[in-house]
Amino acid sequence: MKKIQVSIIMGSDSDLPVMSEAAKVLEEFNVAYEVTIVSAHRTPERMVEFAQAAAGRGVKVIVAGAGGAAHLPGMVAALTTLPVIGVPVQSRTMSGLDSLYSIVQMPPGVPVATMAINGARNAGLMAVKMLAIEDKKLSRSLDTFMKNLAKEVLSKVEKLEKQGFEKYQQGMPKK
Amino acid sequence: MKKIQVSIIMGSDSDLPVMSEAAKVLEEFNVAYEVTIVSAHRTPERMVEFAQAAAGRGVKVIVAGAGGAAHLPGMVAALTTLPVIGVPVQSRTMSGLDSLYSIVQMPPGVPVATMAINGARNAGLMAVKMLAIEDKKLSRSLDTFMKNLAKEVLSKVEKLEKQGFEKYQQGMPKK
Amino acid sequence: MKKIQVSIIMGSDSDLPVMSEAAKVLEEFNVAYEVTIVSAHRTPERMVEFAQAAAGRGVKVIVAGAGGAAHLPGMVAALTTLPVIGVPVQSRTMSGLDSLYSIVQMPPGVPVATMAINGARNAGLMAVKMLAIEDKKLSRSLDTFMKNLAKEVLSKVEKLEKQGFEKYQQGMPKK
Amino acid sequence: MKKIQVSIIMGSDSDLPVMSEAAKVLEEFNVAYEVTIVSAHRTPERMVEFAQAAAGRGVKVIVAGAGGAAHLPGMVAALTTLPVIGVPVQSRTMSGLDSLYSIVQMPPGVPVATMAINGARNAGLMAVKMLAIEDKKLSRSLDTFMKNLAKEVLSKVEKLEKQGFEKYQQGMPKK
Amino acid sequence: MKKIQVSIIMGSDSDLPVMSEAAKVLEEFNVAYEVTIVSAHRTPERMVEFAQAAAGRGVKVIVAGAGGAAHLPGMVAALTTLPVIGVPVQSRTMSGLDSLYSIVQMPPGVPVATMAINGARNAGLMAVKMLAIEDKKLSRSLDTFMKNLAKEVLSKVEKLEKQGFEKYQQGMPKK
Amino acid sequence: MKKIQVSIIMGSDSDLPVMSEAAKVLEEFNVAYEVTIVSAHRTPERMVEFAQAAAGRGVKVIVAGAGGAAHLPGMVAALTTLPVIGVPVQSRTMSGLDSLYSIVQMPPGVPVATMAINGARNAGLMAVKMLAIEDKKLSRSLDTFMKNLAKEVLSKVEKLEKQGFEKYQQGMPKK
Amino acid sequence: MKKIQVSIIMGSDSDLPVMSEAAKVLEEFNVAYEVTIVSAHRTPERMVEFAQAAAGRGVKVIVAGAGGAAHLPGMVAALTTLPVIGVPVQSRTMSGLDSLYSIVQMPPGVPVATMAINGARNAGLMAVKMLAIEDKKLSRSLDTFMKNLAKEVLSKVEKLEKQGFEKYQQGMPKK
Amino acid sequence: MKKIQVSIIMGSDSDLPVMSEAAKVLEEFNVAYEVTIVSAHRTPERMVEFAQAAAGRGVKVIVAGAGGAAHLPGMVAALTTLPVIGVPVQSRTMSGLDSLYSIVQMPPGVPVATMAINGARNAGLMAVKMLAIEDKKLSRSLDTFMKNLAKEVLSKVEKLEKQGFEKYQQGMPKK
Repeated sequence: MKKIQVSIIMGSDSDLPVMSEAAKVLEEFNVAYEVTIVSAHRTPERMVEFAQAAAGRGVKVIVAGAGGAAHLPGMVAALTTLPVIGVPVQSRTMSGLDSLYSIVQMPPGVPVATMAINGARNAGLMAVKMLAIEDKKLSRSLDTFMKNLAKEVLSKVEKLEKQGFEKYQQGMPKK
Repeated sequence: MKKIQVSIIMGSDSDLPVMSEAAKVLEEFNVAYEVTIVSAHRTPERMVEFAQAAAGRGVKVIVAGAGGAAHLPGMVAALTTLPVIGVPVQSRTMSGLDSLYSIVQMPPGVPVATMAINGARNAGLMAVKMLAIEDKKLSRSLDTFMKNLAKEVLSKVEKLEKQGFEKYQQGMPKK
Repeated sequence: MKKIQVSIIMGSDSDLPVMSEAAKVLEEFNVAYEVTIVSAHRTPERMVEFAQAAAGRGVKVIVAGAGGAAHLPGMVAALTTLPVIGVPVQSRTMSGLDSLYSIVQMPPGVPVATMAINGARNAGLMAVKMLAIEDKKLSRSLDTFMKNLAKEVLSKVEKLEKQGFEKYQQGMPKK
Repeated sequence: MKKIQVSIIMGSDSDLPVMSEAAKVLEEFNVAYEVTIVSAHRTPERMVEFAQAAAGRGVKVIVAGAGGAAHLPGMVAALTTLPVIGVPVQSRTMSGLDSLYSIVQMPPGVPVATMAINGARNAGLMAVKMLAIEDKKLSRSLDTFMKNLAKEVLSKVEKLEKQGFEKYQQGMPKK
Repeated sequence: MKKIQVSIIMGSDSDLPVMSEAAKVLEEFNVAYEVTIVSAHRTPERMVEFAQAAAGRGVKVIVAGAGGAAHLPGMVAALTTLPVIGVPVQSRTMSGLDSLYSIVQMPPGVPVATMAINGARNAGLMAVKMLAIEDKKLSRSLDTFMKNLAKEVLSKVEKLEKQGFEKYQQGMPKK
Repeated sequence: MKKIQVSIIMGSDSDLPVMSEAAKVLEEFNVAYEVTIVSAHRTPERMVEFAQAAAGRGVKVIVAGAGGAAHLPGMVAALTTLPVIGVPVQSRTMSGLDSLYSIVQMPPGVPVATMAINGARNAGLMAVKMLAIEDKKLSRSLDTFMKNLAKEVLSKVEKLEKQGFEKYQQGMPKK
Repeated sequence: MKKIQVSIIMGSDSDLPVMSEAAKVLEEFNVAYEVTIVSAHRTPERMVEFAQAAAGRGVKVIVAGAGGAAHLPGMVAALTTLPVIGVPVQSRTMSGLDSLYSIVQMPPGVPVATMAINGARNAGLMAVKMLAIEDKKLSRSLDTFMKNLAKEVLSKVEKLEKQGFEKYQQGMPKK
Repeated sequence: MKKIQVSIIMGSDSDLPVMSEAAKVLEEFNVAYEVTIVSAHRTPERMVEFAQAAAGRGVKVIVAGAGGAAHLPGMVAALTTLPVIGVPVQSRTMSGLDSLYSIVQMPPGVPVATMAINGARNAGLMAVKMLAIEDKKLSRSLDTFMKNLAKEVLSKVEKLEKQGFEKYQQGMPKK
């Protein structure tokens, strides 16, 4: 069993449908991760222990998602020297602006690497990018990943030009 | 020496010009208080200890001010059964909207009694109101306080009607 | 019959689905409450009488919810020495930002303890916290309540770690 | 002495530099007015009496300015059948957005005719427009007023075209 | 046939479901009105003619609703001495904030009496309030109207207190 | 086959349902166009080549739509002397405010002609307006187009006045 | 004397310090322009005449700046087939958000090419870009202009690398 | 000479007073860095070359600051596998909200680690945290750094408690 490198935590299990995207991308890159719930407000002591123990357990990057008054990423960042990546989860009453501001507006000394609202997939990718700094193989995988992003677009370009935009649009899945 | 009933804490000494208003109003009501700095992000362990010890020390209400990603009030509320009153301090880059949203949008289970941006005077008053629930004398002082608010306005009304608004306006201090 | 300690009022019966959460949490704590409609704009005289009579009736805390130009909490606070807890109810056209700003931005002298948008459950809890200042039994109940919050999270943590996040997510109720 | 037709009220004397513009424009139109302070939050009883007595005193239109949680215009509108014109006064911490939303987002049944932030001059003009509905002379004065607005612009157009924009700009007062 | 006193105009027929509320309340007060479409952007010449002719046709108040870059109320106000009441219609992409700002932020000299987003019913009521300034009968109708608002609330209060909030809530129509 | 004059590009095929409106209006004006996908973030090299080659291929105007951190219109504008029209596509988490600000707030030297959120039809029309500067025939078509806009409104006016607003409203398609 | 190709208009002479930047850039490109004041709200008839006559006078592009409820660009766009470039001028109470939304959120059929808040220099450049569509010389000037933008940056890069950032920063003009 | 590990780039030299904070913190940690200007909009080709060459030059982390339509961080992230840290620089007309949204709202596949508005010091720290993942010495320095943050606060706590808040406040530097 591989040693866990990235710890994905979230404030509530209701954040899981968003945050599981971080896990999925780490799997694509074959990076070992764990997924758990750490509530800053309902389990503050667990949060302190978790954050303080992470580096000692060999964790290298923490991805933390939370919504509303989203204190988890910033508090964890205050309790570890590990880089913390924050994901503002879209909230019901403020569409995630509250989550975004609570996570990104950290004071000097305690940074959180903030992603887009609901940007958990990018959080996973940013974790990979951090790990790839000293991991040539991972760096090459990122290179391939980015080339595949381009290829995917180019195949859509081809299809669009072949079919014409009207037919292409008809073939798109309805929201 | 009177036992401290209200603890006024703030995330940074730069919040003091705002937060000292809470202390001043408590003095007006002759309520014993303390003023100190507790940074959620720079002294998280002090914060945990402080919050967990407060009730045991006899503190009855906590007033907490913070700006930006203002996690202090919510985190303290997560660590004590005491009521926490939060003051969003006006931030340099977002005018305090970040502070307000970070403090007010708490999840179910962990409330923070949020005041207006820079509303430290009202935080002190809200603490008095809470203490006055079981303190008849304090309740009467509040009654007098509110009557004085009205009197102050009425004396301005009188002056304004006597002088006329133009003269009154000329006599006002320039901002 | 127990004496009413908390009065839950709202500007319109359309606020009831939100505001009833405050009542439910008070029931969990066995605190006597009343629920009624007091419209600042449609029944201003009833509001004045209600607010002025509340303390005399033995009410100790008022929880007031309103949406849009949400004047009820602030106006009641202007008419009583009791602490008033305000709940901004999510509005149809501004998602509750109008309600939040109307409730929280009170001028010096007249505080309202503002909760999150739709945060009625927390309003009830804040009322309990205020009453618990001089009520040891209630204070212990709060302690238990907070421990149960943690337990609930921890049992989810256990389940998540046992099932894995994918299976856990499949078992979650669809929104 | 002419009978007062327009009552200009404001929540605090600090609103006077803004609100006096309403008085000035009423003077230009020779409409009798009064200027006073009526605080919804610090003198709620005075507010109720004032609003309920206004129509009986012969007042025909009320202009009400307030800032922050600006409840005055809406509460007065709830207490009189007279039309109420609301002026959101620019606040220190939210630039007047709080004032605007608190005044304009009134529920069905209790309208407030809301002006721009700090738009007290327009509040005076709107009062004139209301009075002019059944006052031909006032209506003609409005016609002249609007023609003068145009003339003023046209004389600036002429000057600008004669001087060229560079010279014109140099002659403008510095902010 | 009664002479038209209030002209209800809107920028697009898609505004009709909102704006028809203004017509309905005028009918309740037995005030003669007309309803038509006047697009500032698609029929600017019709708008100019319409606005300039309104006073001559005996119209006393104009109610104008528009969404997005909502120029209709302000432009009509620039072309008539009649009071113009503006209704910001909720837009698809900005929830009506664009409509609100475009209508309310008028420059000195050209006021628009702005209502809440989608506040067409209040626009009709404000028109009635303006007409009632010199119409005792209408003024008495307003008085009755406001008393009925209160009665409606009071009957709900009674029902709520009789049924208890849980049963009352169950009886409410689902959204 | 006519030479392509307008190039319609978008950051993702998910923008197509919005952006196809630009193509449709160009067809109404018989202006030759192309539709393709150019992702600033996933195919940056294609974007550079595309933007740099456009003028040489005879393209005269570029219409670029994008959502979220919408960099495509601004980056293309940085790489060509051709006028670029930007369409902020409504995003899921910020309703398109992020798209709008990312497109419109360009620094001095590199303008993007920004349309309303989802305003692709207007982007097509603005392209026609630019081409019509030196194309009398196209200019006359625009004149007819604007007259037809007015006619359409006028026929609705007629129908509304004939049917009355209630019947008209009943005949409207439900949203 | 060269024939005027670009007409720069603004709602008030107070917009001149912003809008004169459009004139300056047109001078750099040797494009003939005029600068004048056209107030949508204070001179609506002049606006209609001006907009309807512009094309006939040989004007090819209109640049229109306005602040607050900024109706000028959209109304002019409704009255001419010429492309209209809108500049939201920063307002005192809403920082130009009102101006931006009023200008950019135009309905389908009547586009305004919107620039950044206070983006008058870019408005002039966009006018040049439009004129350059059929003007090879102007197109080459644009190419040179863009190369000079790059050169300017590159010379700063060189200076910065030579001096080091600390010395470079010391040499910068204070704000 | 040490090999450059962190490249600090900014869109304009006007961002230097903000961005130099990133350099200063890297110096505190003895991490080799470079500072230069790379404008996405004025030197797009330099940007492409710079971003594509960075990894090959041995750079491990890129810190990119920009304001307004801040495309630099996202575009660089699209052109390299290195982690990019984005700093939204406060803009003149939108206080940096435009910068923040343009940087943080990146689409899936291309993350930018976003800091607070003007949060350049934290950007430098986040770079250190990334480098410390595989650098024990740097990790220990971070540990010391965080302990010093706490010490600094604690010495202020001591001073505040010794002096009392009034004297402490008097001794604070005026803003």
